[in-house]
Amino acid sequence: MIRILGIDPGFERLGIAVLEKTEGNKKEKVVFSECFKTSAKLEFSERLKLIGNEVRKIIKEYKPEVLAIETLFLNTNQKTVMRVAEARGVVVYEGARAGLRIFEASPLQVKVATTGYGRASKEQVIKMVNILVDNPVRDREGSKHISSSNGIDDELDAIAIALTAFAHSRS
Amino acid sequence: MIRILGIDPGFERLGIAVLEKTEGNKKEKVVFSECFKTSAKLEFSERLKLIGNEVRKIIKEYKPEVLAIETLFLNTNQKTVMRVAEARGVVVYEGARAGLRIFEASPLQVKVATTGYGRASKEQVIKMVNILVDNPVRDREGSKHISSSNGIDDELDAIAIALTAFAHSRS
Repeated sequence: MIRILGIDPGFERLGIAVLEKTEGNKKEKVVFSECFKTSAKLEFSERLKLIGNEVRKIIKEYKPEVLAIETLFLNTNQKTVMRVAEARGVVVYEGARAGLRIFEASPLQVKVATTGYGRASKEQVIKMVNILVDNPVRDREGSKHISSSNGIDDELDAIAIALTAFAHSRS
Repeated sequence: MIRILGIDPGFERLGIAVLEKTEGNKKEKVVFSECFKTSAKLEFSERLKLIGNEVRKIIKEYKPEVLAIETLFLNTNQKTVMRVAEARGVVVYEGARAGLRIFEASPLQVKVATTGYGRASKEQVIKMVNILVDNPVRDREGSKHISSSNGIDDELDAIAIALTAFAHSRS
């Protein structure tokens, strides 16, 4: 059995997922996922603290071997991406402190690993993620409709990066 | 007596300084400074771990009330600045965990606070830092010449941001 913690980095919304693969089971199973939010009313340093505490708590509880996290690319909102990078640093730091192996992949690599196609749309990735894993987010939410509100997107992104790490561990 | 931890964020070289101001003493005194380096041979996550551990150790030893750290701006090397942002996140995180107040200032604000002039050169900032503080880096190095090699620049930048925090606490 191997467990991988997938993180979609952010400071407003942090996608977190723990996936597990057991022998004899074809599919990876989502044992935990959430979109962890921090309030914009808080100081940024306080938000970093909450993020690090949450990641540490989940590592302690689920004991994953690997932290899978997307690499960042610069988008148009430079201020935001710098803040996301700071949050990402905190997540990787807590992973390294707990002795996890760190797996990094670009958004392109995640698309290829989940859909086989580097120019896949977000919808295609979400669809494949739901097919590839047991117990995906939509089942637990009691709905077949993936909503981009309330952070389900972030959870699915976290599942997708963890799946990418599983795919790489096979090859 | 108040102590401020100044940090010049980086992952290759992290400038660290602890400044102290006691009543009756006009000048701030540098009680500790160093340029903390991490090897490029290490995994990035390992470097973040070393950086966080070092900051935590220094906070524990010198017990500053404030963490003063520069805000980042995007330069031409986007990959580097993202890595610096991740390291910065780890530093702020350790500061927040230890209950320090976080003081942020831009490079421009640091120049104004140390030289009174927003377009001051690096040399002018260094010169003023050496005048403004007791026990600056050059004294301890046994030389009047500030070298930009071996990390003295980073230490001076850390002293400068701490001085900026002191200046703001007065006003």
